[in-house]
Amino acid sequence: MEIITSLDNKHIKNLSKLLIKKYRDQEDMFLVEGEHLVEESFKSGNLIELIKTEDYERDFDVPTTIVTYEVLKKLSSSVTPQKVIGVVKKLEEKKYGNKILILDNLQDPGNLGTIIRSSVAFNVDTIVLSENCVDLYNDKVIRSSEGMLFHINVIKRNIDEFIDEIHEEGYKVLGTKVTDGENVKKVEVPEKVAIIMGNEGAGVRCEILDKCDKYLYISMNKVCESLNVGVATSIILYELF
Amino acid sequence: MEIITSLDNKHIKNLSKLLIKKYRDQEDMFLVEGEHLVEESFKSGNLIELIKTEDYERDFDVPTTIVTYEVLKKLSSSVTPQKVIGVVKKLEEKKYGNKILILDNLQDPGNLGTIIRSSVAFNVDTIVLSENCVDLYNDKVIRSSEGMLFHINVIKRNIDEFIDEIHEEGYKVLGTKVTDGENVKKVEVPEKVAIIMGNEGAGVRCEILDKCDKYLYISMNKVCESLNVGVATSIILYELF
Repeated sequence: MEIITSLDNKHIKNLSKLLIKKYRDQEDMFLVEGEHLVEESFKSGNLIELIKTEDYERDFDVPTTIVTYEVLKKLSSSVTPQKVIGVVKKLEEKKYGNKILILDNLQDPGNLGTIIRSSVAFNVDTIVLSENCVDLYNDKVIRSSEGMLFHINVIKRNIDEFIDEIHEEGYKVLGTKVTDGENVKKVEVPEKVAIIMGNEGAGVRCEILDKCDKYLYISMNKVCESLNVGVATSIILYELF
Repeated sequence: MEIITSLDNKHIKNLSKLLIKKYRDQEDMFLVEGEHLVEESFKSGNLIELIKTEDYERDFDVPTTIVTYEVLKKLSSSVTPQKVIGVVKKLEEKKYGNKILILDNLQDPGNLGTIIRSSVAFNVDTIVLSENCVDLYNDKVIRSSEGMLFHINVIKRNIDEFIDEIHEEGYKVLGTKVTDGENVKKVEVPEKVAIIMGNEGAGVRCEILDKCDKYLYISMNKVCESLNVGVATSIILYELF
């Protein structure tokens, strides 16, 4: 089998553009790195192509390109790249179910990845991202999701409109406030429910809070003003779902 | 007041060494950036010196050095530095109380910062770090702790020896295992207790698990193998303390 050795190879050059959001959006594809993520993408049916070094032994039943480690590095964003990279088609947006998590203007990729992981752990069926959230297909999001993004429905929406839409469908929307609301330990969970979490620094926007049916808080020591948003979200999901 | 404008100024050059762990250990000092962290360090009595630009108006009652923004940048590890930096003396290790969190070989600075924040929120009195943990005074740890490191006792110890020591004092040591143990929701909390959490990838070491009195697990969907360690730790603290 032919091995691509040239850093100027056209196919590799094109694929390396997927490290940039603009091209991911244009091509509807993204890259994943390492066996675990490649395997998860394969199982989900979204793996299009495998890029690997000659000494990486495992095969997946998709078109495969063998490259030198130097060439493979061009497709990686990690300091010490693993020997296999997957070219993956973006996940299809599906209709949401009864347990929704809305993320409004979340910016940190590690937080989003962590929240995706916890959402799968605690049975959220759909995550709704606002248009200004960090990109779902950012490499750090994918890495910190530990492959869990292949196990959950994620959709992108205008949050203000989305809340109006689900309100009409009978959903209750729960926001978080430090100052008042119900203790998350004691709250009764509606059958059709959306929990909304906001930006790392600013929290949930006032206009969005105004649309909420109920507010939640996590009881904690007053010295600590707030928790990391990934932690706060996870505790709420853990308690409610 | 004199303004330091030279990047070669000896005092600034010396302080910039505190960006490196070796020098922080040598000098027993570290740097914090931004008003919130400077304020927390001041309140804790550990702020030694303030470095600020001329247009930063607030004063703290410690020796103050005015510098240009270019000079200040030399002491910062962020992309867009804030206008104030504090030189802070390392926190004193105190005797532990009855609610201990042990972190064995935790590597990610963001995780440690997040865990410090949650530990204050959920009333841990002492965090014990193994000798191979990420440095407490790493800038990312400090930043993601949101200043909460000034509100908790953190000590560094050989974990194996420490567990033997607290066992003799009547503490119960709780470890985490995915496969068996008690649901964290239902566990009875001993009066003197230490919870132990392990490395991001490998979890708690076998030799340490063997020393535990009880194992805990967080009930979750089987599709998800594990949670982020900051999230898992926070949920356990939230439930137990």
